[in-house]
Amino acid sequence: MHILVVGAAGMIGRKLVAALIAKGEVQGRPIDRLTLADIVAPETPDFAGKVSTVAADLSDDGVAAKLVAPRPDLIFHLAAIVSGEAEADFEKGYRVNLDGTRALFEAIRIEGLREVYAPKLVFTSSIVVYGEPLPETIEDTYFLAPLTSYGTQKAIGELLLADYSRRGFFDGIGIRLPTISIRPGKPNRAASGFFSSILREPLIGEEAVLPVEESIRHWFASPRAATRFLIHAAELDTAPLGSRRSLTMPGLAATVGEEIEALRRVAGEKAVKLIRREPNPAVAKIISGWPRSFDARRAAALGFQAEKSFDEIIRVHIEDELGNTLPA
Amino acid sequence: MHILVVGAAGMIGRKLVAALIAKGEVQGRPIDRLTLADIVAPETPDFAGKVSTVAADLSDDGVAAKLVAPRPDLIFHLAAIVSGEAEADFEKGYRVNLDGTRALFEAIRIEGLREVYAPKLVFTSSIVVYGEPLPETIEDTYFLAPLTSYGTQKAIGELLLADYSRRGFFDGIGIRLPTISIRPGKPNRAASGFFSSILREPLIGEEAVLPVEESIRHWFASPRAATRFLIHAAELDTAPLGSRRSLTMPGLAATVGEEIEALRRVAGEKAVKLIRREPNPAVAKIISGWPRSFDARRAAALGFQAEKSFDEIIRVHIEDELGNTLPA
Repeated sequence: MHILVVGAAGMIGRKLVAALIAKGEVQGRPIDRLTLADIVAPETPDFAGKVSTVAADLSDDGVAAKLVAPRPDLIFHLAAIVSGEAEADFEKGYRVNLDGTRALFEAIRIEGLREVYAPKLVFTSSIVVYGEPLPETIEDTYFLAPLTSYGTQKAIGELLLADYSRRGFFDGIGIRLPTISIRPGKPNRAASGFFSSILREPLIGEEAVLPVEESIRHWFASPRAATRFLIHAAELDTAPLGSRRSLTMPGLAATVGEEIEALRRVAGEKAVKLIRREPNPAVAKIISGWPRSFDARRAAALGFQAEKSFDEIIRVHIEDELGNTLPA
Repeated sequence: MHILVVGAAGMIGRKLVAALIAKGEVQGRPIDRLTLADIVAPETPDFAGKVSTVAADLSDDGVAAKLVAPRPDLIFHLAAIVSGEAEADFEKGYRVNLDGTRALFEAIRIEGLREVYAPKLVFTSSIVVYGEPLPETIEDTYFLAPLTSYGTQKAIGELLLADYSRRGFFDGIGIRLPTISIRPGKPNRAASGFFSSILREPLIGEEAVLPVEESIRHWFASPRAATRFLIHAAELDTAPLGSRRSLTMPGLAATVGEEIEALRRVAGEKAVKLIRREPNPAVAKIISGWPRSFDARRAAALGFQAEKSFDEIIRVHIEDELGNTLPA
């Protein structure tokens, strides 16, 4: 099986590639070839089969056609510029997140005109396709009303995915990822950054800033769960999806206060004391427009599973990012 | 006030132009200029102010920019190829209905980069943005799941409309039109054609074919109501819409049997006898995926109004299309 990962250099992309190599097969078919593409060249992983890495912009002429020409059996489309950048640069956001996605979908369709071709395609969407008015718990049949250009671009991607799948151009599935926590790496300027950093930094003895109230509730899954969602989506028989090709992934609805309690249980009061409260009304305002909780029953019925507690999310981080130990 | 109507040669476009000229003003401002564009040259209406007609494809390079360059104050975007054609010709559907819409929106945004410009923009969407699973009555917060490429393109248009409006590039409002009945003119091959023809043909003493059961329920408004929706949308203060820029228009939920009963009341048994039952499973299957009824309370609260009975819809047709008389 030949797998193409577009967006392979990102945090989720790298974890996905590692998980695919560790698993060795998808849908019972051994993986013998990987094509890893991103705007910067992805690292070449340690893999027995054939690996190609490609540094290119999907929205540039001919790039998508070139990626699709070897007719990969399975395509993961994770490539996107993030919410903050898509909001700051309107044209770039639409070019990368909408035109890039459409270029990939069109390349697959056009490749299929030559000779039958309909790969499985897994598309990452996001819970920010939802917007106001926000019920306390969002059902699977609730309407999409994105409040950002990024959310708009993801919602459009979902619509295209459904139509191209209905037409038989590919066998698509979209997964709306929860906010990924604990996101490894350095603190970044994303409005959602604190959800991870108030755990990540204290776990290694560093200070973190909490800009919002402890009562703020949001929807989370670990990077490990996100990788599992992607692979489960790739293996899933899409027949039960009917025309509804995108699914809200299960997650953990938790408040900031509950995050902090979990940190206390796992790493003690010393860690909790490293969280500095520094209210930021601008961040609070952005977060107030975000979903708080979902009833993701369609995905759950199809076997997608997330963490059940923040203790578990923290333990995943310690195992996967901190060599399974905490600093003394 | 300068008004641009894109799609001015179509049935609704022509009625809209006539209604605007009869009204003479919008938002209390006199209409002094009309630009009427369509893929074929729209007729030049009898109008005291300045009129330009343009025959051009909105998706062709430079067309949208040229239409927008004189900075119209109000833009109606009605242009689209219909459902059947968008389904039969995938590429043309996306080019006209998606790329054309985006070209118009982009032209407005780019015109605004030069000097502040944010016209009011009224976009016609359709109830076919909804799809399975279909509740008996669809609420305003129900999710969009189009089952056709046309519905997909309209749903994408709605998303772009909301994002461009949120960004302040224009002041957009989308209206999801019910199935227009009684559609004037000749019978066409649209799957929905019979909803109109079983009334229109018998009213002039001609035979019509009914391909489905009388129990089929659907959502209707007259062409006169559609024109009224468009003008009401143009006059509406969009502040109460918030980020939700598209509205399901009110309509009449009626069964085919109720249509026929109204025909009997208005035109007698003689007219009803001209309806020939000829079941067509292919048409029945298409129709089964269509919405049956809506609770369009947002639009109703904002003052949009449709007909309350099919008797009224038939009378509108007799007044507007048959010179207010029935053949003996």
